[in-house]
Amino acid sequence: MIDNRGRVVALIPAAGMGTRLGEAVPKAFVEIDGVTLLELSADAARRSGVVDQIVVAAPTELIERAAALVPDAIVVPGGAERSDSVRAGLAAAPDAAFVLVHDAARALTPPELFASVVTALRDGARAVVPGLRVVDTLKRVDATGAVLGTADRDELRAVQTPQGFAADVLRQAHSGQGDATDDAGLVEAEGVAVTVVPGDAMAFKVTTPFDLRLARLLVADRQSS
Amino acid sequence: MIDNRGRVVALIPAAGMGTRLGEAVPKAFVEIDGVTLLELSADAARRSGVVDQIVVAAPTELIERAAALVPDAIVVPGGAERSDSVRAGLAAAPDAAFVLVHDAARALTPPELFASVVTALRDGARAVVPGLRVVDTLKRVDATGAVLGTADRDELRAVQTPQGFAADVLRQAHSGQGDATDDAGLVEAEGVAVTVVPGDAMAFKVTTPFDLRLARLLVADRQSS
Repeated sequence: MIDNRGRVVALIPAAGMGTRLGEAVPKAFVEIDGVTLLELSADAARRSGVVDQIVVAAPTELIERAAALVPDAIVVPGGAERSDSVRAGLAAAPDAAFVLVHDAARALTPPELFASVVTALRDGARAVVPGLRVVDTLKRVDATGAVLGTADRDELRAVQTPQGFAADVLRQAHSGQGDATDDAGLVEAEGVAVTVVPGDAMAFKVTTPFDLRLARLLVADRQSS
Repeated sequence: MIDNRGRVVALIPAAGMGTRLGEAVPKAFVEIDGVTLLELSADAARRSGVVDQIVVAAPTELIERAAALVPDAIVVPGGAERSDSVRAGLAAAPDAAFVLVHDAARALTPPELFASVVTALRDGARAVVPGLRVVDTLKRVDATGAVLGTADRDELRAVQTPQGFAADVLRQAHSGQGDATDDAGLVEAEGVAVTVVPGDAMAFKVTTPFDLRLARLLVADRQSS
């Protein structure tokens, strides 16, 4: 879909190792039933119908592999830090009006979540993140594990991806040299208003072996039903 | 196990409806492969080897059903509010030295988590909660969904159950008439130190249909492996 309302680029930083997962390959290249997290994530972006171009920032040694997995993507070498990968992806998408930064590790994100983020951007928001209420009580603790107090859960949202930005806002936020795991946090620091739209439980991040087990069970369940 | 070091009671409030789950029966009586969440939770407490007595606070109309499901438990009528159920359970356990309050909805909690909470209590802690680091970035939002800022995730723990208490501490905390979804919060308000021990991803709370789907997939996976 290319229209005159501004080109949408989905940027997938896929260069991270994901050490907590304990797999031998970088996290985006871990497979679920023979399909990499990267492919699953790119497929969701593609199926959303709201993404004009996918850009993948891959580990240097896996550039060709990434290009084979996501043949319609622009694949660029990622950097040592996540922000380096985002900067490399932005440089490869000079004509983007909106950029959706999406964790490859949120491999089961529904396409509809991409669409709802883009809708909010087209409605005028400059920065949009999906977020979910937190089910568990949250305690503030000190370094010894002693509880300092209970956080106000009602005012907190656990944020997911895709996180959507007007491209100039994201470029400005990443114009420095620092690293950030949280693009919206950089944008907030620039004084830009960030809006939360409802997230989706399926957009959970595969971080631990338990998460990967859940993702595999969910994919198997989806295939059998 | 009855020993001279203080009797441990596991108290399971099982009177709540769990409206977010959307099932026709109170949440503790929802089944996974023919086994209720209540039975799964009681079974984990029993298998831990550290619980001397299980007390269940059930809906009045399901007292007999609860007693049939957990034949070794003391079953008491629960109340309209969760705290009413905790108070009813405490009244049925006058000889408890330590009380573990456990959500029936955390049905896949490993027995080892009960054991680690009791170990901390026997080591002198007066109030112990299991907690996990939060994976997602947490944003503070206002009522319109506008982001106010980013919370310091490193100092936050998502707390689970079983939550363990010296019995007198929990009795004092519940001596008022108020309601609380968070027993540790009541204890904190009394000025008692609360300690966090490492939680377990399997101790997640079944709150939504998605959570129930996950629990069913995990149980099926456990049975097939």
